[in-house]
Order: sequence, then C-alpha cells, then structure tokens
Amino acid sequence: MSGVAVVRDLLVGVDVGGSKIAVLVADKGLSPRGRYTLPTTVGAPARAADVVVGAIAAAVGDAGATVDSIAGVGIGVPGRVDPLNGTVSLAVNLGWNDLELGTPVAERLGAPVRIENDVRAAAAGLHERGVLGDVADLAYLSIGTGIAAGVVLDGRLHRGVRGLAGEIGHVVVDAAGPTCPCGLRGCLETLAAGPAVARRAAAAIAAGGTSSLAALGDLTAADVYEAAAAGDTLAAEIAADVGAHIARAVHLLVMTYDVEVVVIGGGVAGAGDAFLDPILRALDRLRDASALAREVLRPGVVHLLPSGSEAGAWGAVTLARAAASGERPSPAAADRLSPVEGREVGDE
Amino acid sequence: MSGVAVVRDLLVGVDVGGSKIAVLVADKGLSPRGRYTLPTTVGAPARAADVVVGAIAAAVGDAGATVDSIAGVGIGVPGRVDPLNGTVSLAVNLGWNDLELGTPVAERLGAPVRIENDVRAAAAGLHERGVLGDVADLAYLSIGTGIAAGVVLDGRLHRGVRGLAGEIGHVVVDAAGPTCPCGLRGCLETLAAGPAVARRAAAAIAAGGTSSLAALGDLTAADVYEAAAAGDTLAAEIAADVGAHIARAVHLLVMTYDVEVVVIGGGVAGAGDAFLDPILRALDRLRDASALAREVLRPGVVHLLPSGSEAGAWGAVTLARAAASGERPSPAAADRLSPVEGREVGDE
Repeated sequence: MSGVAVVRDLLVGVDVGGSKIAVLVADKGLSPRGRYTLPTTVGAPARAADVVVGAIAAAVGDAGATVDSIAGVGIGVPGRVDPLNGTVSLAVNLGWNDLELGTPVAERLGAPVRIENDVRAAAAGLHERGVLGDVADLAYLSIGTGIAAGVVLDGRLHRGVRGLAGEIGHVVVDAAGPTCPCGLRGCLETLAAGPAVARRAAAAIAAGGTSSLAALGDLTAADVYEAAAAGDTLAAEIAADVGAHIARAVHLLVMTYDVEVVVIGGGVAGAGDAFLDPILRALDRLRDASALAREVLRPGVVHLLPSGSEAGAWGAVTLARAAASGERPSPAAADRLSPVEGREVGDE
Repeated sequence: MSGVAVVRDLLVGVDVGGSKIAVLVADKGLSPRGRYTLPTTVGAPARAADVVVGAIAAAVGDAGATVDSIAGVGIGVPGRVDPLNGTVSLAVNLGWNDLELGTPVAERLGAPVRIENDVRAAAAGLHERGVLGDVADLAYLSIGTGIAAGVVLDGRLHRGVRGLAGEIGHVVVDAAGPTCPCGLRGCLETLAAGPAVARRAAAAIAAGGTSSLAALGDLTAADVYEAAAAGDTLAAEIAADVGAHIARAVHLLVMTYDVEVVVIGGGVAGAGDAFLDPILRALDRLRDASALAREVLRPGVVHLLPSGSEAGAWGAVTLARAAASGERPSPAAADRLSPVEGREVGDE
C-alpha cells in the first residue's frame, strides 16, 4: 500500500497532417491543458511511432505532466484507418501504406490508443463537443489538399463498411473534367481542392489571362483567394466556379444524408470570406431555382469553421476519450468484410 | 367470457404507385397469404383512404380472412412521409400534398398503420427479409418515373432529419444539363429516369437520327430498351449513356454511404439485361481507371432486382410488422426539426 498512484486523467489528441503534427492535451472535462506543434510531419514509416510519441511527450510536458498521466490517446490521420487494430492504410500524403501505428504508440505510452481518419474524427469531435449546439445529424466537409466529409447521423459517426464513408472528393462531378490522381475523370477534388484552385489559376494565366497572380511564383489556393479578395477578376472567377462546385457538394451531402448542418473547414477554408462568399452565392442560386433546394438548404445550413478551431486535434481528443473509456470502436461492419481480431489497442 | 376472439395475425402491405395499388397480405412469418392489385391509383385525396381500405379488404378476402384479422398495415407511398403522424406530403405524382392518410385508414380498420416513403420502405424490407443475405449496409436504387435511393446503414433504415435521405434523383450530375421539374439543371433524373430515356430517344430521332423507334408513337423507356436489345444503334447509344450515369450513381452511393451492396430496381429496371449490361460495362470502365474504384466497386456490388420481386409491397409488409409490434417510428430527428405530437397512428 506504499507508493504514489498516478492519476491517469489526461486525454491526448494528435492531429497528423501532411506538413505538421499538432498535439492537444485536455482534461476529462475537455478543457485544454497543453499543446505542442511539430512543424514537420512524421517522416519515414519506421520512425512514425517515435515521432508521434515524442510530440505527445512534449505536449504533456506543456501541460505540466508526464506520460504516466495519460488516460487515452487519439490519433487522426489523413488516410484510411482500421480502428480495431490501429492500422493506417492509404495515407498517400504521408507515404504510409498498411502501417501499424496504434500498437507501438500504445506500448510506448502504456495507454490505450484509438486511431481514426482525421476528417471523420473531426466530425465526431464537432458533434460530441456540441460546437453546433444540439445537432445530431451533421457533415463536416474538409476542403484542403483533398476533399472529404465526415458524417454524424443520429448522433453517431458513420464510418461505412470499409471506413470510407464520405469520400466525396472522388465523386465524379464532371465526366469530361480533368483526370484525377485516383484515375477517374472529373472527381470533385480535381476541380475544387486546394491544388486544383492553384492549378486552375496558373492555367488561366498561361492561357493569356491577366491577373495580379502572374507576378507570383508557385501559386497556392491562398494566393488565389487573397487576389480575389483584392479585386482580381481572374482569381474571382475561379473562386466563383470553385464555390459553385462546393455548393453542389453541400447540396449532395444534404440530399444523400439529409443532415441538418454542413460545416466547412480544412486548409483552403482558412481563406475565410473570399472562400465562403462564392459558396453562399451559389447556394442562393440553387435556392432561387428550386423549392426543394430551398427546403433542404435552409438558411444557416452551412457553417464555416473559424480558423484556429483545431477541429482535427479536438476530434482526436474525443477519440482519446473513447479510448480511455474502453469503449469499443464500432466493429460490426468492418468485421463482416474482413475479419480481424477484435481488440482495443493497448488493452493488454 | 363468451364470444370468439379474433386472432389478429395478418400483416398487410400496400404499395401505392402512380398507376396502380398493389396489396400483399402475409402472416407473421412473412409467408404470402393473399394479394390484390387495383389497376388504377388512388384518385382524389378525399377518396384516398376509402380506395386504400377497399383494396385492403379485397386482398384480405383473397387470403380467406376479414379485416378483423389484420394485425398491422404498412403503406408505401411515392412522396415524403412523416411516419409519426402518418401524413404524406409532396407526393407529386399522386396529386397529394399534406394528406393525412394514416389516421383514417387506421380508424376504418381498427388496426395500427405505418406509412413510409415507398423506396425507403422497400430498402428496409430487402434488409429485414435478408434478400441479399447477411448484409447490414445496403442501398436500394429505384429507377422509374423518378430516381431515389433507400439506404440501410448498420442494419437500420436511414431516414435523415427530414425523411429525405437518399433523394439522389435531384443531385446535379451535369451542371449544363436539362432543366429538371424541381427547378435545378442537370439533376440525375433529367438524364437517367424513365421519362428522360424516352425523351432523349425522341429528341435524337427528331434531330434526324435513324431508329426503329421512329415508327412508334409515344415512346417509353421500355420501348428504348427493347429496341436496344434488338440491335437498334440509336437506342443502344442512349442506353449506354444512361448506364454510365447510373454507374456513377452507384459509385456515388458507395462513396458517400460506403455500403456493401447496391440493389437496383424500379420500373425502368424491369427492362432487364438491356438496362443492366450498360451499367455493368460502365462500372468496369470505372474499375479499369481507378484502384480506389476497383476497391469500392467490388464484383457483385450491384444486384438487379428480379421483376416480380414485389419489393415495394414486401417493404410495406415489413412496415406492417413494425406497426403490429407497436414499435415506434424513429422520432428523434424529425421531432427536433418540426415538433409533432408523437404517437403511433391507430394507437387509440
């Protein structure tokens, strides 16, 4: 009966992005306790667990604690995830394929780990934290390097049988459109994701268009929206067309899932009003044309996530809470398609 | 203690279509016991309950019983339904708007009544009856006068907050396409529903195209598929383009909901191979182009409902079973958007 029992009361959310790793430490009441951002990403798969654990240790230190205080860890990654065994596959931007990340992190920290796709984790976090109030059916539409949606239906994260639900970046929206890296033509991503916005501006300038952007080097989507906000016509036209595509994506999400609210976030959404206004104008055009669209696209159907919302990190914190509670990841559907040994990572 | 207690052991499913009413009577083990088809539809809203009750009485008679034996009634209608109060709204093809159908039918029969959109009822029925085996995540894609999907996720019918989930007939698939009666341009229905198939063939002939269809009067989608099967090039080209649209709709359903199986049915699907083969060829093209498409569009992802499957009537029978069991329609989401007095029709 001697010795001091360490209270495991910290939840750690890790948002693994393509260019940085953001760690958020919270207490069980979901108040923030510490943060750490690593300005590089994980590097080689073999080092991924070490890098993640190092970032976690730094964030827990920022909270004035040690890793002994960790009750649970959640990790959001931009790829497909098997939450039952903590394996990440097809995280193309990270160079990962079939990387077992959950078990090594859990073993190093002695705490349970839950891994989920970053967009789906963010959607679950927005719901669990009640960011939009008492809304049980919502979609989180992330517009960044890629486009994907995380969907909460009737209060529960909808993963689908393969954990791919909401991958609308690869829905074909223009059968005659550009070829997507996925192989199909005219996927939503080829027309409205960040790289597409930049590429479309560069192509319009190369085709003789006049724009303040011509003076810049490698364009980014942020450059295009900044120019549009400053009155650049070429940039504004691209922003308008991208807005029309995203408005139709919002309409698609509402018509398929019949959710109450669509929250838009992701790197490109950080451009703020220059990004949002063309979407709102396009939604108004849909409403003007159609009584059905007016009904399903109610005023306030779209919310833009304020920059600094840390939706990914907070989503990972809610994963951490689930891991800490011993709650099982929803196994039924995944089990049926490809049976795996059902266990919580870090159980033993 | 005198008198004979009537055993209420019959489930009655009513499939209200645009041109007929089909009633299927089953026992609680879901074996068919009787049928009746009224070759006209319900007529004026004021008479709708009478017409439905008359058809039910005839079908129960065919089962050698009387309406006293009815344990529950399910009604599938092509429109939006509030299952809590049994009200049908926006059943455009029936000329109904805000028709209270559940209560009068329940009162006349003295049995509980459950009403649902016909496509969603069919999807729930396909799942409950295990028509596709042990599949908990499926979409039923109905291609007829309109296009809609009913979706079962994780074993439960997904209705959405307004009961509109799966209305993909009004997803914009070609922003430059024809104007839809809903007001938007290029909705899937304007390119691939039955009337669109017929209209596209007529337009191609009017534009000088050569086809055996030119000798016919008012074309139907069935005419077009029959001609395509007989080798008519113009008809086959339309069938191919429609098949490509439907294949992309299947892809859309899989990418949004991540279901395991998509079952295609509805009036147009009755054309059989001439309808299905172009869809399968288009799915193969998607698979050839994309590893991701290959993975989500596994062999066998698409099933064509055999004609004579009575998916609508069987879906209504499963509604009847729910009504008979006293099971509550899922109220939470609908309640939140527009509070209604929550009660089972026929409770009192």
